[in-house]
Amino acid sequence: MIIERALMAITPGSEADFEAALAKAEDVLAQAKGFHGIRIARGVENPSTYLLLLEWDTVEDHTVGFRESELFAQWRALIGPYFAQAPAVEHYAEID
Amino acid sequence: MIIERALMAITPGSEADFEAALAKAEDVLAQAKGFHGIRIARGVENPSTYLLLLEWDTVEDHTVGFRESELFAQWRALIGPYFAQAPAVEHYAEID
Repeated sequence: MIIERALMAITPGSEADFEAALAKAEDVLAQAKGFHGIRIARGVENPSTYLLLLEWDTVEDHTVGFRESELFAQWRALIGPYFAQAPAVEHYAEID
Repeated sequence: MIIERALMAITPGSEADFEAALAKAEDVLAQAKGFHGIRIARGVENPSTYLLLLEWDTVEDHTVGFRESELFAQWRALIGPYFAQAPAVEHYAEID
């Protein structure tokens, strides 16, 4: 299983709107091939930063299948307006 | 639920030894009050970096209860020798 770890720094003050947009954006994500789930958590030390943990079958399901699809445009249109800076994204392969 | 996100950069070449030490260290962690589980994943873009996602009831269960206990000394003694630099740790409160 691949874990996509995305750190999203949001414009301070827009947290509630971002969380509402993210709830809608999850419906878009749910349609992506190879996608298995998402967990969302808000920073304790940095409350305008969100940790998103997405599960994919393969890295390519995210980087090619999703990012190059119309679904990604919809996803980004919903949540992009709240970004204070570009998200930091890395992939990890679960062990154990 | 609190997610502790720890990024651990390991001395390249010591990944197998680190993973074996981590398996032992998990037995130590399992004894900590307020601890609920850990997921471990290895970096795809940076294969000497590991993402650890630990679940705690509260931030203080980690920062006080665990870190100031003898268990933390045991945990760190097992995995610390493989660190290439100090781990980067942040806490996130799960939403939804």
